Amino acid sequence: MTEHPLKAPLAPGSAIGVLGAGQLGRMLAMAAARLGLRTHVYSDASGPAFDVAAHGIVAGYDDADELARFARGVEVVTYEFENVPQETAAIIERHVEVRPGPRALAVSQDRFTEKSFITGLGIPVAPFLAVDDGAGAEAAYGALGGPAILKARRFGYDGKGQASVVSPAEARVAFAALGDVPAVLERRLDFRQELSVLIVRGRDGAVGLYDIPQNTHAGGILRRSVVPAPLRTPETAHLHEIAHTIADALGYVGVLAVELFDLGGSLPLEKRFVVNEIAPRVHNSGHWTLDACPVSQFENHVRAVAGWPLGTTERHSDAEMANLIGDDVLAWRDLAADRDACVHLYGKGEARPGRKMGHVTRLRSR
Amino acid sequence: MTEHPLKAPLAPGSAIGVLGAGQLGRMLAMAAARLGLRTHVYSDASGPAFDVAAHGIVAGYDDADELARFARGVEVVTYEFENVPQETAAIIERHVEVRPGPRALAVSQDRFTEKSFITGLGIPVAPFLAVDDGAGAEAAYGALGGPAILKARRFGYDGKGQASVVSPAEARVAFAALGDVPAVLERRLDFRQELSVLIVRGRDGAVGLYDIPQNTHAGGILRRSVVPAPLRTPETAHLHEIAHTIADALGYVGVLAVELFDLGGSLPLEKRFVVNEIAPRVHNSGHWTLDACPVSQFENHVRAVAGWPLGTTERHSDAEMANLIGDDVLAWRDLAADRDACVHLYGKGEARPGRKMGHVTRLRSR
Repeated sequence: MTEHPLKAPLAPGSAIGVLGAGQLGRMLAMAAARLGLRTHVYSDASGPAFDVAAHGIVAGYDDADELARFARGVEVVTYEFENVPQETAAIIERHVEVRPGPRALAVSQDRFTEKSFITGLGIPVAPFLAVDDGAGAEAAYGALGGPAILKARRFGYDGKGQASVVSPAEARVAFAALGDVPAVLERRLDFRQELSVLIVRGRDGAVGLYDIPQNTHAGGILRRSVVPAPLRTPETAHLHEIAHTIADALGYVGVLAVELFDLGGSLPLEKRFVVNEIAPRVHNSGHWTLDACPVSQFENHVRAVAGWPLGTTERHSDAEMANLIGDDVLAWRDLAADRDACVHLYGKGEARPGRKMGHVTRLRSR
Repeated sequence: MTEHPLKAPLAPGSAIGVLGAGQLGRMLAMAAARLGLRTHVYSDASGPAFDVAAHGIVAGYDDADELARFARGVEVVTYEFENVPQETAAIIERHVEVRPGPRALAVSQDRFTEKSFITGLGIPVAPFLAVDDGAGAEAAYGALGGPAILKARRFGYDGKGQASVVSPAEARVAFAALGDVPAVLERRLDFRQELSVLIVRGRDGAVGLYDIPQNTHAGGILRRSVVPAPLRTPETAHLHEIAHTIADALGYVGVLAVELFDLGGSLPLEKRFVVNEIAPRVHNSGHWTLDACPVSQFENHVRAVAGWPLGTTERHSDAEMANLIGDDVLAWRDLAADRDACVHLYGKGEARPGRKMGHVTRLRSR
């Protein structure tokens, strides 16, 4: 832990640091600006967050001098991606706090650690086993007893570092294809719907919970979030409680996304909802909050990190958010002319396949 | 007119230029970023817009070299204040278009020209006379026949360059106090309420009209806007028609604010509403649109200037916007803790008296 705790709440005009310069960093910087805070962005490559930041540094995440310079220029640091190296965070923590916090980073950077942690809280996850070699992959498949997904323990996102397998032999091949890196094999579940809970937790332990979106993925990438998901009040309360338990256990500060599978209404609540993964940051499935809520996930994350009181998590409208992936963004002229669409473009250059280029939110009266 | 018309609509990733680095430029830059556009800010002094701009230039508005450099870096230029010198606009127009447009600037920079222009459209304004010397001020007071306001023809804002007068002698003294500059004396009207129409007009002549706020000023500065104002449908339609007429007559592109007095319901519509002034830019009385509308005045201004189709001007919530003037902003901790408040702080340094430091919007269900 840093020896320089934040003097909270951070006064307007102060600077916060963001590690990462993608669209999440960009939207965090804009939310910070709304509150009168200045954002310094640090990334190992150019990115769209620099366009809306008061200050930017492009340098390696292992560049101790530049990291120290970055840290000395701000009052607190947050991040837009969970794969911030521990050493990067440690260097910054010599100067200022890094939030959501080291525990959240450590847990979420390793899928085995993450699943073990969540299971340890009494919250269901899909059956899983660690896999360290090809033989282990075969054996794990046999033990789980059915279709499964092999996932690298570290550095996966948007479906990268994953493979579906339907036999022990496939599991062995997939392990080699992942690059012989430590992995987990998890049982593939038949689910009725995918959900995510967006929770924000303040430095004082106060939490705010947004209404729960129903999410649709394709190719491992989120395509669509619709809020509210078709859930009854006790179901929503149960899911909120799961997220609250996880956030408390992590001593979390900021927005945390908990992705879950709904296995169907015939199961009791305690077995029906299974955590897929957590993301210790603002999350794509919360982008609808920019348009449908007085206070977005980005602003609430900044508020938490900056030691402000949390803002409301209420929603004034129902919403459907659709990602613009790769070539989807080429339809920007049509989207611009669609008067029901709140258009968000990230200012990225090349529309590569699978690249998140923007999103569109459509609001409906509640 | 420029010889380099905009290739509309401006593609995501393109840069737009903003003259002026205050809070309006700041919110324009954030709206542009939402659409994937980069903003270059030009100002003769530092200001909060630079913190969210991709690029910034601090140089004089008469610095032809820097203006040309600025203009060459962007695809179109807009401004956050109506006192952009004609020569500044002319230099930029050699390279790219400046919008809302030269006619709007010329008309709104001189109160006499502005009032004559509006009267010429058959739209009522308060009785007014040009004043060029002390004797003229006395004579004008006599001719108008009652309490009046002396206003410098040029460079006034937020009540600066104005004085209330209740006698011919006071009119003469006020003229000298303004600095012996060309002025207009206008009859002071008893009004029931102050209103403003926020209209956006696209390059194709399409318009969008926001619902009309009721505004409260103190000391010449806007304090509060409440939307909707208490108006019946034909009244709203009449006011929208006034703004539409003015925007069309100016060949306007972007958001135009038309401030009016409501003299009371006993008068026929054509006499009841009197234009006070127009502002050829986004306007403080439209800040509520950031929180209460899917598409804010800032985004619609950017859309128009960038040649995009206009976005909706619909409103999902009722709203009350209160400015934070000077020391008001010192209450930011309380405002941060007020869960009904959408807090906007501009990141300005010193909370000088009369300085607009931020605003707060409170939403209510419609």
